[in-house]
Amino acid sequence: MTLPPGFTGGTLDRADHLRNDPDALSGLRAHSGARILLLEGLDPVTGDDGGLGWRALVASDSDKDLLFLGLEAGAPRFALVEPEGPRSGSMAVLQLLHRLPAEQVALYGGARSLVDWHYRHGFCARCGVATAVFRGGWGRRCEACKAEHFPRVDPVVIMLAEHEGRVLLGRQPQFPPRMYSALAGFLEPGESLEEAVSRELHEEAGVRTLSVRYVLSQPWPFPSSLMIGCIAPVENDAIHLDTNELQDAIWLGRDEVRAVLSGEPGARIMTPPPLAIAHSLLQAWSRD
Amino acid sequence: MTLPPGFTGGTLDRADHLRNDPDALSGLRAHSGARILLLEGLDPVTGDDGGLGWRALVASDSDKDLLFLGLEAGAPRFALVEPEGPRSGSMAVLQLLHRLPAEQVALYGGARSLVDWHYRHGFCARCGVATAVFRGGWGRRCEACKAEHFPRVDPVVIMLAEHEGRVLLGRQPQFPPRMYSALAGFLEPGESLEEAVSRELHEEAGVRTLSVRYVLSQPWPFPSSLMIGCIAPVENDAIHLDTNELQDAIWLGRDEVRAVLSGEPGARIMTPPPLAIAHSLLQAWSRD
Repeated sequence: MTLPPGFTGGTLDRADHLRNDPDALSGLRAHSGARILLLEGLDPVTGDDGGLGWRALVASDSDKDLLFLGLEAGAPRFALVEPEGPRSGSMAVLQLLHRLPAEQVALYGGARSLVDWHYRHGFCARCGVATAVFRGGWGRRCEACKAEHFPRVDPVVIMLAEHEGRVLLGRQPQFPPRMYSALAGFLEPGESLEEAVSRELHEEAGVRTLSVRYVLSQPWPFPSSLMIGCIAPVENDAIHLDTNELQDAIWLGRDEVRAVLSGEPGARIMTPPPLAIAHSLLQAWSRD
Repeated sequence: MTLPPGFTGGTLDRADHLRNDPDALSGLRAHSGARILLLEGLDPVTGDDGGLGWRALVASDSDKDLLFLGLEAGAPRFALVEPEGPRSGSMAVLQLLHRLPAEQVALYGGARSLVDWHYRHGFCARCGVATAVFRGGWGRRCEACKAEHFPRVDPVVIMLAEHEGRVLLGRQPQFPPRMYSALAGFLEPGESLEEAVSRELHEEAGVRTLSVRYVLSQPWPFPSSLMIGCIAPVENDAIHLDTNELQDAIWLGRDEVRAVLSGEPGARIMTPPPLAIAHSLLQAWSRD
């Protein structure tokens, strides 16, 4: 069975129609089932049951920092923008999340991206003045120039170049020892996702793309990307590595990919953990 | 023949490796073939040959506002961030662009998104201080807090809900008379594209998605979206319209879609022009 990509499968109703309604938001705040997600800075905090931790609202919780995440079985769920706190690396956070059910991972991921966006966007990019939360936390407004700013999501293409039954994996210098992953890069203004895949594969590995097949996507909360996973047959397997981006790149066949994914001892490489889309993408390809 | 989506098919080499190299950028500026794209504010300006207009660099062109778009047959192409000027609506701009070859439309689209991003992001969102262009125009840096900011691309899902051989088109109040288009919305932090499609279709039309099939994508420079086009079979054809978003929605079969796309007189609706992905998506579906 192929598991759904990490950070997907959320069950929260985002209830977009309530965000613009101040009366409705006041009602949600006063709801007896209202809860605030516990975070330490941006790190998840587990509750008594081992799942994500929550607390009730108190009088000192300021409306101006309250982000409405959505409804869980009718009960409002919030997060708070707090002063910057601890912020563990993505690998440490992924290890914590690995034990949680998919819907809690998805909820945490979306909340983390939203809280982090507020941390990093307290001022108006148009005029420099401090902005304030509006739309229940799904935007910030500048009272000086009236500009409205909305949470940012950065599309990233992540792809397996494919040639004669093998796919290309690359290694960035900062990866843990022996780790290889699918090549990836930010999509730029003026590109379709297919064009971004071709450009990145050519820039990083010198390979020419023949076609691009979309496979699956996931949100990635470090800090807030949409990962768009593709498979791209390429002209040939001659690699010209961009050594500013990649330390090494290798071609792997289906048998070796299956062995690595199943954690067989003695594999020459390791791949990103199951919550990362590179894992899902390799799994999908290895079962094609 | 299905045409490629609008704003794709660019032939410029973005030459990413030159952006971080100040010596290389100086050399590009001094290149005898270097040209600056003519814009009036954000509007395209046509040259003597009826294509996009260009001019040579002059001494007064400030390095600090020069954006390196890429290389065209080895010759550097730039745009300038200028004080805000005329800014026609997207429909007027699309009519101008309609006469240009695809690669010029793509070049203009990418340049417009980049110039517009600089217009709207002169200040640091983290600390409020004025920022300066870096990386040859592909970012802005804050000298006060050292934050780096990169051009923003907003992923948007645009989709045809499909049921028993018909697809759903909706009409926003601000559309030109008789125009209907595919439903669409911004993807939010914490969503895969499949989840965003399901949420938007449910929010706007009250339909439940059974599955999502990615079809094609395009960049959209008003101001800077990645449009992700999908087809989504839904449970049934009962519509509950969100009247804040849509004025009307209708189901159309393949024969009627083909008639509308081919501009047959007497069609009860019209659809967005060929440069819009809704057109490409309808075309792809009508030929399935």
